[in-house]
Amino acid sequence: MLAAGYGMRARIVGIATRRDGARYVVRGFGRTRAGSTAAFIREACARDRAAARGGRLVMIETTTLDIERGEPAVTHVRAALAGGAHVVTANKGPAAFAYSRLMRSAARAHRRFLFEGAVMDGVPVFNLAREALPAVDVTGFRGVVNSTTNYILTAMEQGRAFGDALAEMQARGIAEADASLDVDGWDAAAKTAALANVLLGADITPHDVERVGISEATAPLAVEARAAGRRLKLVVRGARNGRRVVARVAPESLADDDVLARLEGQQNALVLQTDLLEEIAIVQRGGGLAQTAYALLSDLITIARATPPARRSTRRRRSP
Amino acid sequence: MLAAGYGMRARIVGIATRRDGARYVVRGFGRTRAGSTAAFIREACARDRAAARGGRLVMIETTTLDIERGEPAVTHVRAALAGGAHVVTANKGPAAFAYSRLMRSAARAHRRFLFEGAVMDGVPVFNLAREALPAVDVTGFRGVVNSTTNYILTAMEQGRAFGDALAEMQARGIAEADASLDVDGWDAAAKTAALANVLLGADITPHDVERVGISEATAPLAVEARAAGRRLKLVVRGARNGRRVVARVAPESLADDDVLARLEGQQNALVLQTDLLEEIAIVQRGGGLAQTAYALLSDLITIARATPPARRSTRRRRSP
Repeated sequence: MLAAGYGMRARIVGIATRRDGARYVVRGFGRTRAGSTAAFIREACARDRAAARGGRLVMIETTTLDIERGEPAVTHVRAALAGGAHVVTANKGPAAFAYSRLMRSAARAHRRFLFEGAVMDGVPVFNLAREALPAVDVTGFRGVVNSTTNYILTAMEQGRAFGDALAEMQARGIAEADASLDVDGWDAAAKTAALANVLLGADITPHDVERVGISEATAPLAVEARAAGRRLKLVVRGARNGRRVVARVAPESLADDDVLARLEGQQNALVLQTDLLEEIAIVQRGGGLAQTAYALLSDLITIARATPPARRSTRRRRSP
Repeated sequence: MLAAGYGMRARIVGIATRRDGARYVVRGFGRTRAGSTAAFIREACARDRAAARGGRLVMIETTTLDIERGEPAVTHVRAALAGGAHVVTANKGPAAFAYSRLMRSAARAHRRFLFEGAVMDGVPVFNLAREALPAVDVTGFRGVVNSTTNYILTAMEQGRAFGDALAEMQARGIAEADASLDVDGWDAAAKTAALANVLLGADITPHDVERVGISEATAPLAVEARAAGRRLKLVVRGARNGRRVVARVAPESLADDDVLARLEGQQNALVLQTDLLEEIAIVQRGGGLAQTAYALLSDLITIARATPPARRSTRRRRSP
């Protein structure tokens, strides 16, 4: 399959899907049946050695989050970097569980490890801090980054039952299949760990994040906050405390004029505390699958822009 | 003067100030008295030819906005680019009056023309769109970008007089010396033109922006909006309309849950409408002179990062 546009040409050389019973297809090389996805990634990199050597091989990783250890995504990322491929992932696991280790692997291999889709879909949280804020030290952050709990809290303010609101989010494909990832705060904790690792130089996992989720028992708090002109939100926080980084996820009652208080449904936001610019907030007014897909595309473009094209494609790229 | 840090070493080779009676100092070359600032810029570039040729000369422009024609800033920028210098400016004029022309000059000269400080101080509005949103088409924007009018509108909601609130902002050094630049919407119109030119590919000036300012007569509208649970804000807008770009500045009554409605005092925000990411808002929670200074620094770092150092400084830079 060939795709052109955005100043690059892309060719898919292999796909591994769990749904397809671990049967993998490497285009141009026939079908294969590697023992594991990691073995398949190694094989695909080895078979396309010229592209790997030229920095023109990219693994795009979209497995779902495993909250125990961030696997198998972490292993996939390591296999790809070791094989000479860049990595783009929408999975929070790698940055939440093994950010500094994977960044060191990527630096050694002169390859990129990008994951813009891990937090707030394609809204450029990591890109912003990496590319657009030179010389700014981020000293802390707080945000609302989980849509399911955000929706449920608003529904409970209005008297709806916890279970009904959750079931609706599952039916709409927004909640995780395993509801505990959302309501127990694990998804938010994984995003918090990723943010703390990247923005604050922490080296933590989601299990180091202090974590309070929401449940039916949270309903009275949500109603009470609203009655007092406030809003109850599941807030994530990270901050430096001396040489340590403290991170937590918990319902907080926010003043009505807080930029986080006004987020409804799938609106997310992140407030960065900085040394030179005071606070900057970035607000996502709509999220979903298209935005996650964009995140993968934007990371791919970031890689393509920094990669010299293969000789043959240079000639073709110039055609009008 | 030498400055080191942020991965670069900087040396000031000349300063031109209006306050100092047009007496210019070029370090290492004694004093000079060029006929005009533009002539001085040309002279400074010619005297430091090696740095100019190596792309290591930068002019930092901080004159105040002239709303008639964007001068003398536009002339300064052209003189610097013609002399081989990069340009960093906090002045809105060049991007508001001559963006596409100056970008073409910069491209021809292989030099950068950067102006992050022109809108929302150092909050990376232009950097965000340029570096962090690859493949996203910005289709429109709206925002609150003038602190003085924002403060006055809130004060009038609370029953204070227009003149008192304006005088306070002037005393605090936040309002422009010429109050009409703020209250007649000229500052906002210049920012709107710059945003439209950069984000929407327009080729307009502040005089093409439909413009309604605020005055004592706006007070009842502000009070009325607040009584209805809404907020009156001076909103800037830009959008594509077929092949044209329409841009305007006007007081608007905003619903209370609008991200722009909640901005107080020196808080500014910009909402970008995009094709792939729906709406993204970037909110500045505190602004001032330090933030404008940061904008100049961030642009300087952007240039330094892309510039190979002179041979002598390469050796020095490696010392621990």
